Amino acid sequence: MATETRLSRVEGDVGRLTIAGYDVGDIAPRVPFEAMAFLLLHDQLPDDTQLRAFRNGIAAGRTLDEVTLGALRAAARAGAAPIDALRLGVSSLVARELTPERLLGALPSITAAYARLVAGAEPVDASSPELSASESFLLAFQGTPASRAQARALDTYWNTVADHGLNASTFTARVIASTGSDLGSAIEGALGALKGPLHGGAPGPALEALQALRARGADIDGLTRAWAEGEITSGRRIMAFGHRIYKVRDPRALVLEQAAEQLLAGTSLLADARLHEAAVLAVIERLKPGRGIATNVEFYTALLLHGLGLDTAWFTPVFALGRLAGWLAHVAEQRARGRLIRPESRYAGAEGRRLGPSA
Amino acid sequence: MATETRLSRVEGDVGRLTIAGYDVGDIAPRVPFEAMAFLLLHDQLPDDTQLRAFRNGIAAGRTLDEVTLGALRAAARAGAAPIDALRLGVSSLVARELTPERLLGALPSITAAYARLVAGAEPVDASSPELSASESFLLAFQGTPASRAQARALDTYWNTVADHGLNASTFTARVIASTGSDLGSAIEGALGALKGPLHGGAPGPALEALQALRARGADIDGLTRAWAEGEITSGRRIMAFGHRIYKVRDPRALVLEQAAEQLLAGTSLLADARLHEAAVLAVIERLKPGRGIATNVEFYTALLLHGLGLDTAWFTPVFALGRLAGWLAHVAEQRARGRLIRPESRYAGAEGRRLGPSA
Repeated sequence: MATETRLSRVEGDVGRLTIAGYDVGDIAPRVPFEAMAFLLLHDQLPDDTQLRAFRNGIAAGRTLDEVTLGALRAAARAGAAPIDALRLGVSSLVARELTPERLLGALPSITAAYARLVAGAEPVDASSPELSASESFLLAFQGTPASRAQARALDTYWNTVADHGLNASTFTARVIASTGSDLGSAIEGALGALKGPLHGGAPGPALEALQALRARGADIDGLTRAWAEGEITSGRRIMAFGHRIYKVRDPRALVLEQAAEQLLAGTSLLADARLHEAAVLAVIERLKPGRGIATNVEFYTALLLHGLGLDTAWFTPVFALGRLAGWLAHVAEQRARGRLIRPESRYAGAEGRRLGPSA
Repeated sequence: MATETRLSRVEGDVGRLTIAGYDVGDIAPRVPFEAMAFLLLHDQLPDDTQLRAFRNGIAAGRTLDEVTLGALRAAARAGAAPIDALRLGVSSLVARELTPERLLGALPSITAAYARLVAGAEPVDASSPELSASESFLLAFQGTPASRAQARALDTYWNTVADHGLNASTFTARVIASTGSDLGSAIEGALGALKGPLHGGAPGPALEALQALRARGADIDGLTRAWAEGEITSGRRIMAFGHRIYKVRDPRALVLEQAAEQLLAGTSLLADARLHEAAVLAVIERLKPGRGIATNVEFYTALLLHGLGLDTAWFTPVFALGRLAGWLAHVAEQRARGRLIRPESRYAGAEGRRLGPSA
């Protein structure tokens, strides 16, 4: 038990996620992401005036200077991975004081600018305060304005993943903040932790598995059953199923399923995804009965982000753009506490070594 | 108790620091920093062949590419602080796989190159494998070769601070590494934590206090007593005295005192520093008797680094270059463990909020 938080509660046994007092299923599909970020930072949803001021602050943070753009151009030439470019972009924000609004503006801009540069195009200006966070990001990323459905789906995704207890990246941000370090250092450390494959929430492999099966034929149910049996009997874990905390269905999966449904309604991908999920769960229940392995957040995240036109290489940075809201609020909460996090270690190394006289 | 480690043990009650089985006072003044880094990574001191191979690996990591140099040039134009430039430099190492040797080569190069750029000069090539870590850094930083005494003093300093239990930056590196993330992300997070004023080990203020008193007159004993009384009765903490773990004299202080002595022998600064330390301790013992407040590592660190010609702005990055050895070894140790560090939090926020039907 490392700390107390007012930000979110994860109840793995009953499959419930509470974010600042709201059930994730109640709030995530219904407010813009900026309102969720404001809620986490200020423990209340903004009224219209507060939301407008917060949006203006975020919009002012969207424009990148030449330190950042130069670093991103060089990183694109060097072939850096999107998540590494995002980390580089954050550490290049040296010229201005970093506030939550500044970072909520800059990180989507960095991600989108890098996507354009990697594609051989120039960054698109999407800094207008008339644009919501999701509208601005999708315009900057795609180069064309987002539909209402796309922006709503991205808001729902970001809201759903905005905070999730004391996960490893959030804990990293709090440890760094506890030394009195700056906001940029804390967020950069969190990005470094989010990158790790054990962190979870990186939904690329789930989609890749489904697409590989679809490439092999039309009988998704049969193909999935054969594949899932092979994976499980070989001792491998099936990505996007099972969670170290949730023993029933991840409550975020339902929210994202509904959002992905609206985005992908009528597509064969959605139909295949349903068949795939049902087949995997049937195989798991047969081979590992009663283990509480259920669909986690990654499965419908992958469909939703794919539905927004994102390649899997961008899934982790776009996850980070949502989790950023939680990181910022945890840093503020940790700062208010004002105490250094410095755990103890037990020494289990060599004893009584001495250098010889000639050393 | 967060983890077990074979790397170092801090015994605050008896004032003892054990690094990989050696007492800090036995090993720090007697081996080159590369040998200390090797010891931490491999749990044994290198023989001559191993040391040569390790040095060659480090030397190969010293050359910076245009992603890094371009970022540092832009950061210098923007006026970034040295520690922020070091963080930026690390996140710019996107083109090559990062190994301990690569980072042990690159981080001193980044720090030194940034010092030159800030001074309006061009970076100096000090990448020759004939140069030890301390010789290479001092040549690149100053632009002229180091004396034997300077190089020895820097080796002793880096060895002394190379590892110190599970401090906040080391813990940050381990949390990030525990997600399976890369070495650069872990080191960058650690740099972010090291920057915080509560981390400790940043010795600038200790020297600044002494220099301010020296500027006011020659009676350092009397001036220090009056100043220290004022600080303590006003409830302020005197920098470089007292430590949250050591209740007797920090064992590192003695090692660094001897190293600083050799570097500053015969100077008025050294004489004044001794008077200052004795006067502060006398005042503390009178006003706060029996509290176990003793001189910590910061005091003689400040003298030593000043004796090497470093301004206080460079103290934290140069501290990081020594602690890097410990971070790298802790990351390797954490990876070998292969388990995610993810503590629990207790929710203490709002309950049962609901969005109204019109939200």
